[in-house]
Amino acid sequence: MNLASRIEACRERVDRALASWLQPEPGEPARLNEALRYSVLGGGKRVRPLLVYTTGNALGVAAEALDGPACAVELIHAYSLVHDDLPAMDDDDLRRGRPTCHRAFDEATAILAGDALQVVAFRILSSDPAMTASAPQRLDMIRLLAEASGPRGMAGGQAIDLESAGRAITIDELETMHSMKTGALIRASVLLGALSYPQLTSAEFDALGRYADCVGLAFQIQDDILDIEGDEQLMGKSTGADAARAKPTYPSIAGLAAAKKKASLLHREAVSALEPLGNRAPGLAELSEFIVRRSR
Amino acid sequence: MNLASRIEACRERVDRALASWLQPEPGEPARLNEALRYSVLGGGKRVRPLLVYTTGNALGVAAEALDGPACAVELIHAYSLVHDDLPAMDDDDLRRGRPTCHRAFDEATAILAGDALQVVAFRILSSDPAMTASAPQRLDMIRLLAEASGPRGMAGGQAIDLESAGRAITIDELETMHSMKTGALIRASVLLGALSYPQLTSAEFDALGRYADCVGLAFQIQDDILDIEGDEQLMGKSTGADAARAKPTYPSIAGLAAAKKKASLLHREAVSALEPLGNRAPGLAELSEFIVRRSR
Repeated sequence: MNLASRIEACRERVDRALASWLQPEPGEPARLNEALRYSVLGGGKRVRPLLVYTTGNALGVAAEALDGPACAVELIHAYSLVHDDLPAMDDDDLRRGRPTCHRAFDEATAILAGDALQVVAFRILSSDPAMTASAPQRLDMIRLLAEASGPRGMAGGQAIDLESAGRAITIDELETMHSMKTGALIRASVLLGALSYPQLTSAEFDALGRYADCVGLAFQIQDDILDIEGDEQLMGKSTGADAARAKPTYPSIAGLAAAKKKASLLHREAVSALEPLGNRAPGLAELSEFIVRRSR
Repeated sequence: MNLASRIEACRERVDRALASWLQPEPGEPARLNEALRYSVLGGGKRVRPLLVYTTGNALGVAAEALDGPACAVELIHAYSLVHDDLPAMDDDDLRRGRPTCHRAFDEATAILAGDALQVVAFRILSSDPAMTASAPQRLDMIRLLAEASGPRGMAGGQAIDLESAGRAITIDELETMHSMKTGALIRASVLLGALSYPQLTSAEFDALGRYADCVGLAFQIQDDILDIEGDEQLMGKSTGADAARAKPTYPSIAGLAAAKKKASLLHREAVSALEPLGNRAPGLAELSEFIVRRSR
């Protein structure tokens, strides 16, 4: 199966699993459930689940055992988008061409939907019967995902991002913000895939952590590059949004050429980090290349 | 130690543990951390931690092993207050006589603080070294707390509460809303204390669940009663807030006398439910009595 087919297969797989976990259940208010499903099942690249599946697959873990962690990281990602779009935060009316959750429903429902999505992620990791990881490994996954989502991870990164709006910040400050706001969850995606493997060594764990750090930052830099020179039709959205908001990005601080150079360098570092995995590395190396070469 | 001293001891214990878990950490944005501490450490009855400690203590679990679950349930409670106070939700400027989090800081910070508080709860349950519960028991705690907090628990209950504003609802609908919005977390508090006990039987688990259901509803009904006839000085707040909002409560639907009768009945049912615990029941029975007789 070539990479494009594998990406599509992962996407279909996690979408099916997400739809299953988000089925309406007795006692659950219908409107709130609709808001959860609207916020998750409306499309998306599913990059984070892809990282879970690719990492787990490289280590020989069956796909069914990875559905839980794949859903969990995507739910955390989805919750962050719902809250980031709120009027008090980035105040966005549209996402992927559709009304944002608070516009499609109402702000209170969107706040609660984001809250609920986050908690469903932890419910999955603590209860999914298809996961084969041991109880201690599952606790590690939960701890890691909580760290990635919380005040030293995604929530902290978003706080810094909001504080930085309109300010001139350095490349170091930008990288720190990115590593918290988006890198932490990308790292958690790779490591939750890894923690699904019973014989994981600490050398492999560390190597995959380094791989994830490189891939996480490269992902964000490529997003910044696409916002400037991406093909609008391919991406399904306009370019220039970051500049219009005076949002500090890698290209806006360091220049477009330096940004492209950095993304390529990060890809090479990601591949080098995979060395302890030996001949299990190709799928992950190919994914890193995809991340920096993609056009959407 | 009499009940009042035990309540005070629990409160001091959990406050110390919460302050420790919420210490500022490197990489964490300072303002966000201040908002978390502001939202948690400014006082509170700590009823949910009290239920954790009392249940665990009845089963012979050491207090240190209960600090983690006690903090976790209080953090979930604190997050719900921060989000419930937001302009799009209950739109409250004051809580316990102080500005609400979004007023003291800003709305974006309050949204993120609530998000972060919820996730710190799961971080504690998955990583607190002082907890003696086994890994499978910890996963059960996490699952239970996630259920209590999510769309079939607290978040779902709040969604129903918001939908019910200004509508005439039945006693059954009110009890359903209460059991989700407040009862689920109270139930989780009792059961997290219980799950800290290695030899817990399913009969004991079920009994404590029934106890918790009774105590949870009694707690809410007593809140409703105090809002009408409580001593304002003792409570530190004005009465009449529910009526002013046309908020459906037990007394407003069924009458004050029926509400008091129901609270007493629930207390007797709670004590009956404790029968499988035999001579370990007194502390829990006393706590149930406190909940329906309290004046604040």
